[in-house]
Amino acid sequence: MTTTVRTRVAIVGAGPAGLLLSHLLADAGIESVVVDQRTREQIESTIRAGILEQGTVEVLDSLGEHSRARTVGHRHDGIEMRFAGEGHRIDFPSLVGRSVWLYPQHEVLKDLIAARLAGGQDLRFGITVNGIEDAGTERPRVIATDADGQPLVIEADFVVGADGSRSVARPVVTGSAFGGYFREYPFAWFGILTEAPPSADELIYSNSPDGFALISQRSATVQRMYFQCDPDADTAAYSEAQLWEELQKRVPGTTLKEGPIFQRDVLRFRSFVAHELRKGRVAIVGDAAHTVPPTGAKGMNLAVADVILLNLALQALLLEGDERRIDDFADAARRRIWKAQHFSWWMTSMLHVTADATDFDRMRQLGELRSIVESEAGQTYLAEAYTGWPLATA
Amino acid sequence: MTTTVRTRVAIVGAGPAGLLLSHLLADAGIESVVVDQRTREQIESTIRAGILEQGTVEVLDSLGEHSRARTVGHRHDGIEMRFAGEGHRIDFPSLVGRSVWLYPQHEVLKDLIAARLAGGQDLRFGITVNGIEDAGTERPRVIATDADGQPLVIEADFVVGADGSRSVARPVVTGSAFGGYFREYPFAWFGILTEAPPSADELIYSNSPDGFALISQRSATVQRMYFQCDPDADTAAYSEAQLWEELQKRVPGTTLKEGPIFQRDVLRFRSFVAHELRKGRVAIVGDAAHTVPPTGAKGMNLAVADVILLNLALQALLLEGDERRIDDFADAARRRIWKAQHFSWWMTSMLHVTADATDFDRMRQLGELRSIVESEAGQTYLAEAYTGWPLATA
Repeated sequence: MTTTVRTRVAIVGAGPAGLLLSHLLADAGIESVVVDQRTREQIESTIRAGILEQGTVEVLDSLGEHSRARTVGHRHDGIEMRFAGEGHRIDFPSLVGRSVWLYPQHEVLKDLIAARLAGGQDLRFGITVNGIEDAGTERPRVIATDADGQPLVIEADFVVGADGSRSVARPVVTGSAFGGYFREYPFAWFGILTEAPPSADELIYSNSPDGFALISQRSATVQRMYFQCDPDADTAAYSEAQLWEELQKRVPGTTLKEGPIFQRDVLRFRSFVAHELRKGRVAIVGDAAHTVPPTGAKGMNLAVADVILLNLALQALLLEGDERRIDDFADAARRRIWKAQHFSWWMTSMLHVTADATDFDRMRQLGELRSIVESEAGQTYLAEAYTGWPLATA
Repeated sequence: MTTTVRTRVAIVGAGPAGLLLSHLLADAGIESVVVDQRTREQIESTIRAGILEQGTVEVLDSLGEHSRARTVGHRHDGIEMRFAGEGHRIDFPSLVGRSVWLYPQHEVLKDLIAARLAGGQDLRFGITVNGIEDAGTERPRVIATDADGQPLVIEADFVVGADGSRSVARPVVTGSAFGGYFREYPFAWFGILTEAPPSADELIYSNSPDGFALISQRSATVQRMYFQCDPDADTAAYSEAQLWEELQKRVPGTTLKEGPIFQRDVLRFRSFVAHELRKGRVAIVGDAAHTVPPTGAKGMNLAVADVILLNLALQALLLEGDERRIDDFADAARRRIWKAQHFSWWMTSMLHVTADATDFDRMRQLGELRSIVESEAGQTYLAEAYTGWPLATA
């Protein structure tokens, strides 16, 4: 028997974008239903890194005690850019008056889920969305199957696809299965989790003749590190000693603190932006709309920026009947998306070494890194992007 | 009959680098001989564009009344970056407190030649250099043939190759015929000279879907313009109307003032840096040491920066017997050279459109241009490089 639910905004996907949008809409008195195919446990246990821009943390502050970004997360006031055997610190507060927070994405999700449930939110797990209909009307509908295999229809004033890179909503918006600008990179990151003390207080982005490495942190006892690898690298092909050797040789001048490696994975690098972000009463946000390589730490922050714009547009549309903001939503979002795409590409191209790079390319890359660290303006330009451009406020 | 000349510094090449070095050495009381294969008339009539960094103009000020850069040249306080149909001015004085001067290279050469001859300089034209010997000793020698076909030997304490991109001195220094880092670009500039009033007060660097264009000036009645073309473009294949059409469509939003086109040429794009800049008592500077694509307007300015470093090193060596500066010359020069190579590559890659660029690449490029013009730090980073990083002073 088909269950039909009526709400103002139907949100597909209980990731950071969908949950935050639901929270912001509720603050404005707009009811929504959030559905996700996964269980709550699956969502909360999918461990993902997280560097939060200051603006993202400020938005999460509105969760009140449910946001632990400032208390459990770690404020980072800079990063180290390492090349030619030397480290150069980019000091965020003195350059741009902002910082970033190291706070994993799954912790953000736990906070958002707890806050939504405490607020009495209609948040449903185990829901498979099969399609979105009537996007061109004022009554779009989500066609789904619930956790018990029963048909579920959500009728809404607006549908938001916050359902990640394999979005069901995206083809509805773009009109085709792929429908986007795309770039693939000839390398990936080999990521490890190790039980060891931190090797550094802040993230180290290291360019070396052997390729890129990122030395990151998780906690006082667990560290996250990555090194540039082949996209088809086999995680089982390395002994622990070999992994430490690969990491260590990519950060010359730094001695890594080693420990047992208890997780290994390969992250492929892709850039993607959907051709369209809205069709009628359906919009896509976050990973459904774009993918960035991880070098710029922009993924979750860009999702938050989308949501802030869409929240303001939906308030104007649903509370005041004003369509101008929703009509401008895609253009406004795209301005930030393409700056973030550029920044992510730039950090990637500046720091990684490709197999086809000539000696000239390699020397020019070092000339670029030197140009940035020797210039306060260059450092500021990088820090502005890394800590996040201003978010829409009204 | 072989003529043997004895001097302290033998300089091969009477271009901006060689002539300026001779001038600076003379100011320090160090005698030099400058030779060039061309006649004075050939040198002074080889018309080349020129954007002088403020530091270059300040160095030329030491020529006194012989430098007309400030009186005949034009100070430019900014450039326009044009893309997506909009112009964005980069205002140099407010960003970095510096300007640039539009003053053609052949005018700089006239000034330098007049000043050198007025100072009684031994400046010889029509001299073909066949080789440089004994670079590893304290008495290197230039082996040449004079304008009358007679052998000429110049014995010196130091030999400088300022003899351009087909340098005779370079293989002596690098040990091989090529001996450098190299990059070629899949496009060139189609340049025209037109008898018309200026279309703009300052240079316009324009990125368009049809490719790059640079709208430059020469005088009140003659203008210089360039548009991106195939490296094998045939200058005769275009009618004047077609040239104006090609230019005009690359600067959408601007109306060019047209006039008769009386010169056309194709400038190929190359990046080159010699592997070595000095061997014993022989050094290379300017185009003999490096080539940059013209987009960053760095060619002549980088030659001047080399010469300033080499002048200081030669003063230490020849007046005080101190070898430390000459031992450090190549490393010191290379730091600026690779920053300038990066800047030239960056301006080129940011503004040109390549045939293999994907839709993603094109959108990212616009995202980059927008990131720069929307950020004071980004504009400053660009302006610092365009107007010139500080030159060595002691």
